[in-house]
Amino acid sequence: MSTDAHTGLQLRSLITRSGELQISLQRVPTPEPGPDEVVVRVEAAPLNPSDLGLLIGPADMNTLRASGIAAEPVVTAQIPGKLLRGLSARLDESMPVGNEGAGVVVQAGSSAAAQALLGRTVAMLGGAMYSQYRTLKVQQCLPLPQGTRPAEGASCFVNPLTALSMVEVMRREGHTALVHTAAASNLGQMLNRICLEDGVQLVNIVRKAEQESVLRELGATHVCNSASPAFMDDLTQALTTTGATLAFDAIGGGKLAGQILSCMEMAAVARMKEYSRYGSTTHKQVYIYGMLDPAPTELTRNFGMAWSVGGWLLTPFLQKIGQAEVQKLRERVVAELKTTFASHYSREISLAEALQPEIIAAYSKFSTGEKYLINPSR
Amino acid sequence: MSTDAHTGLQLRSLITRSGELQISLQRVPTPEPGPDEVVVRVEAAPLNPSDLGLLIGPADMNTLRASGIAAEPVVTAQIPGKLLRGLSARLDESMPVGNEGAGVVVQAGSSAAAQALLGRTVAMLGGAMYSQYRTLKVQQCLPLPQGTRPAEGASCFVNPLTALSMVEVMRREGHTALVHTAAASNLGQMLNRICLEDGVQLVNIVRKAEQESVLRELGATHVCNSASPAFMDDLTQALTTTGATLAFDAIGGGKLAGQILSCMEMAAVARMKEYSRYGSTTHKQVYIYGMLDPAPTELTRNFGMAWSVGGWLLTPFLQKIGQAEVQKLRERVVAELKTTFASHYSREISLAEALQPEIIAAYSKFSTGEKYLINPSR
Repeated sequence: MSTDAHTGLQLRSLITRSGELQISLQRVPTPEPGPDEVVVRVEAAPLNPSDLGLLIGPADMNTLRASGIAAEPVVTAQIPGKLLRGLSARLDESMPVGNEGAGVVVQAGSSAAAQALLGRTVAMLGGAMYSQYRTLKVQQCLPLPQGTRPAEGASCFVNPLTALSMVEVMRREGHTALVHTAAASNLGQMLNRICLEDGVQLVNIVRKAEQESVLRELGATHVCNSASPAFMDDLTQALTTTGATLAFDAIGGGKLAGQILSCMEMAAVARMKEYSRYGSTTHKQVYIYGMLDPAPTELTRNFGMAWSVGGWLLTPFLQKIGQAEVQKLRERVVAELKTTFASHYSREISLAEALQPEIIAAYSKFSTGEKYLINPSR
Repeated sequence: MSTDAHTGLQLRSLITRSGELQISLQRVPTPEPGPDEVVVRVEAAPLNPSDLGLLIGPADMNTLRASGIAAEPVVTAQIPGKLLRGLSARLDESMPVGNEGAGVVVQAGSSAAAQALLGRTVAMLGGAMYSQYRTLKVQQCLPLPQGTRPAEGASCFVNPLTALSMVEVMRREGHTALVHTAAASNLGQMLNRICLEDGVQLVNIVRKAEQESVLRELGATHVCNSASPAFMDDLTQALTTTGATLAFDAIGGGKLAGQILSCMEMAAVARMKEYSRYGSTTHKQVYIYGMLDPAPTELTRNFGMAWSVGGWLLTPFLQKIGQAEVQKLRERVVAELKTTFASHYSREISLAEALQPEIIAAYSKFSTGEKYLINPSR
């Protein structure tokens, strides 16, 4: 047993009833592990967009201020009043953050399964990962192959399982090809590698010319730039070629989701032999799974009646497909962790650095290709 | 056999490649009935919003002009150039119009089923109903009880089956109450009667104070006026009371679909015990089945991730539930034709009147409560 694990620093996010966001580091006791639990010294935890929602909420980044003392830093920001209503369930409640991470098992409960993990490097899913120590159940840990560093296993769940699930959704809902937006992201690059391996046709939508090049260099066939004047024609052409009728959209706001449906419909109508006032009978689906653009989604409904736009989340999907299927996906992630599922981070920061206003301003920008890794043990 | 049925007038809609809408009356031969077919003298056919899409298309109503001679009237209007692309499959093709109607069987094929209909008043589904005579299959006819006038049976399919299907969708998709927009329409009043009969809680959304009164007089409990400043609060209250998580929206454009989702989410979040950054896990569904407002749909996504907005059409739904289930719905319509499924028309017009510009301008306005009936035999 490692005695220094009795307490550890933990990052906390609090939004007060008066509308102030407070991010702080607190020293919290590490719970003793039950028989089927282990204590992990967290060494790497990514800052995913889904973490930022909880960490920062809808705070106004222009009001960010550092306070507290160096040993106990606190950073504050203001929440616009009209947005407080939607947060009522978390007000005045200090919340730990961090969906996933990786580290080394430093203490284990009495069960054989727990004992077997002692000293192993494991990936973890379960919240509160921006902590120096995490006590959690054996089944929340994924033992990594010998020689895997925590930083290499930090993003084993959210991005890999999301990318794999997109292909699963495609198969289960009867589509035969995929569209993905923000396609040059870590997740997008992973999805591109999966589709190349599995022979699934993927239409990648990016917002910048340099992102086009990144994907083409990674072997992507269909890359459309939404900033190009030829975007609608290019996308229709790619959809005609691939027959894709399912899109996963990380952006959410603006016209993009509707444009995808319009182009899918143009590709579908071109295949029709007879006119229908209701448009094509081809069902066209866009799932919005992120909100890089929080602006309203604007749908110009020129795509017939066979369409759907909806929110999509990983966890309910995994619950739906069941434990056995999820286990297969996890095993593939571990097997291809350094290839298909490799993540790239632009910077590794400590817990204290995660509270510096200029660093918060940088990682909260959601720039594609800019991804931060927190190392709570630094 | 009725010799005057050899030919009959038929209303036709044509959009030329150059962008001109032409509505005309043509004398067409009445096909001889096959063994399992009958010829019906059409005496009543409603002008549903779904008919207007085919009849008028996206023509600019300010450019409506009468031409032709009195005996062969033609009316023309211009289609804005940018809208022609979506119509490519119907350009230069003269199309008959009219989804449904009712009339008297004046000639019958040799089969027993066809002969049994001779002289009967029947409701019909099958297109081209704005015709003096229609030859169609026995199974497309619904014999009406003795004493039913064609005008009473003209709207046996589109509105009644749509309203009944909304309740069916609710049950099949696991919802327990309904929201309906444009709720004072003929269809909305029918749905209100069905829900009262079946004990289903219905939240009616209207756009005018007088429509509120109409529905309350018909026994509706929950009526919200989207033009009221208290709309969002009223709707949230009604959704909290009823637990409705499914809406059918006839309007389509603007913010309404998103407002419904927002209010459903507020009702759902109020029931939650724990905060989730992803919002409630309650699935919220809006089906857009009409487009009274062709403007873009604007979704301010403040309703978590468990939501879906999609197009909904009657025919694919009926195909999905199968012939036996559809037959049950049809039987209920016939049994309650003069009560639950009674339609009201503001005016009955002849085929020639349907081509008068001032009458077209009136019926194309989609005013709730204003509904026209064409009597091709007048």
